[in-house]
Amino acid sequence: MNEFEFIDWVRKLSKDAEASCVKTGIGDDLAVIDVAGQKLLLGSDMLIEATHFTFAAATPEQVGRKALAVCLSDCAAMAGKPLAALVSISKPAATDTQIVKQIFSGISKLAKKYSCPIVGGDTCSGTEKLTIDISLLGICENTEPVLRSGAKPDDTIYVTGRLGGSILGKHLHFEPKIQQARWMAKNLPLTAMIDISDGLSSDLNHICEESKCGAELRSDWLDSVIAPEAEKIAKQDSYSPIEHALNDGEDFELLVTISSLPPEQLPELPQGITLLPVGKITSEADIKIIYPNGTGENLPPKGYNHFS
Amino acid sequence: MNEFEFIDWVRKLSKDAEASCVKTGIGDDLAVIDVAGQKLLLGSDMLIEATHFTFAAATPEQVGRKALAVCLSDCAAMAGKPLAALVSISKPAATDTQIVKQIFSGISKLAKKYSCPIVGGDTCSGTEKLTIDISLLGICENTEPVLRSGAKPDDTIYVTGRLGGSILGKHLHFEPKIQQARWMAKNLPLTAMIDISDGLSSDLNHICEESKCGAELRSDWLDSVIAPEAEKIAKQDSYSPIEHALNDGEDFELLVTISSLPPEQLPELPQGITLLPVGKITSEADIKIIYPNGTGENLPPKGYNHFS
Repeated sequence: MNEFEFIDWVRKLSKDAEASCVKTGIGDDLAVIDVAGQKLLLGSDMLIEATHFTFAAATPEQVGRKALAVCLSDCAAMAGKPLAALVSISKPAATDTQIVKQIFSGISKLAKKYSCPIVGGDTCSGTEKLTIDISLLGICENTEPVLRSGAKPDDTIYVTGRLGGSILGKHLHFEPKIQQARWMAKNLPLTAMIDISDGLSSDLNHICEESKCGAELRSDWLDSVIAPEAEKIAKQDSYSPIEHALNDGEDFELLVTISSLPPEQLPELPQGITLLPVGKITSEADIKIIYPNGTGENLPPKGYNHFS
Repeated sequence: MNEFEFIDWVRKLSKDAEASCVKTGIGDDLAVIDVAGQKLLLGSDMLIEATHFTFAAATPEQVGRKALAVCLSDCAAMAGKPLAALVSISKPAATDTQIVKQIFSGISKLAKKYSCPIVGGDTCSGTEKLTIDISLLGICENTEPVLRSGAKPDDTIYVTGRLGGSILGKHLHFEPKIQQARWMAKNLPLTAMIDISDGLSSDLNHICEESKCGAELRSDWLDSVIAPEAEKIAKQDSYSPIEHALNDGEDFELLVTISSLPPEQLPELPQGITLLPVGKITSEADIKIIYPNGTGENLPPKGYNHFS
């Protein structure tokens, strides 16, 4: 049973306890809870030493920053504004409290930047790996939450930046696209959105599953979204730059589908917002890459499985 | 640096990022966030295998039940109603997914009973100890949140049930006092409330610190709040029944202070609500036990320190 099968099981288990205030439960970037007409967002992300980070590759401050940034990226993927966060942290008994303070400094600086105060959490000692779980409360103001489930055939698929090779540094210093997502939700006919945490192929697959559709990616468009870091890392391993762009995780760009808005009709975008087309939504059940000569090949989701 | 010193440090660090919507941040059972006049509650609790539970002493279902119950107890301590919860869980690679499913079954049954749907979370593999972090969103409807900081000299201190020896079973099957707390907040002049998770001496100390006051506990009243389990466990170790009632953690009763309401003036309480007096709030800086002959002795907080 992999992570996604497990989540499906939990989702079914939780379904019948769902109250009417739950507009979107398990299965999106964040849950949507309606409280007196306010659309609240709620979700959490857990990072574990050795699995998600090492102190050899990242400073404690960077680890803390990232732990909050991934939550803020989920909030962006709903077109939400952060309200507050909870930080639960468990450290090995031997870990100096100084390390934990540095982690909190990293969290705290980003919290301030994105107006997302830390209002609680828990602190424990006992795990053999340092573990951080951050929960985020957000809200959709003046826009509806943009879900994974709204994509329709013929929608154009865009990403907000170039992809691949984030392990070379971007995964530690990316900026969650809160403002950009809120602008897009107000000004463009977005039908679905997700942040690219598992990798383009996996995250597009999440949209297709939730929206009950398929997708065609254009290989020539994909060529334009390969990050320089994907080129660089491809020289060091057996994968091509395009494979890195398609399957690397942790770019934390946004993947959006936009109704009736092919690239040539995109309005002028404000500074700081980039939209690169990668393909379109189809009514088929699968995701294909289409080559300039018209041939296609299936693209299996190859992103990270956290739970096997 | 113990857990409470660390929390103080985080609290100071977070203070200056607090937005105006944060009515109560770190330092109470749950944070209070004001969203369009709605008083939202937010907090989390982390349980770690070997530190907080073992599968030798509890079934996976019981562990799951408890992980949610401690959060619901925090919600009760604010006089809140639960809205939704997030479950983040990390398992050792070798742990069978079946165990995790049983944990979720335990969570899910209690979630249904208390109308608190599980709407998200995270699932990981990688810790060497199974770790569960549950975050709760709640709301105060028709009442103000009851904080730790409102106790005033001469308030009477009550507990909602007898204390001590919860390790013999109550810590696994206690019912969070959600309904009872909401009734009390509507019908009695509560000034402060906390749930007894660390132990009466520690949790009363939290109220005294936040309320900048002291307390006198009456030894004859304390005698009446000793649970039979405290008597039983005292026969097996070197502590007296009263020490167990004062210092054992995880009773998950509520500790409340009530303004101008000595025991003889308590109104008739509905079925399911018990209030046992234990003492009164003073303007001194310390917590004392007062004996029938009028002598007193200081009571240091001896509850559990999670972080040393």
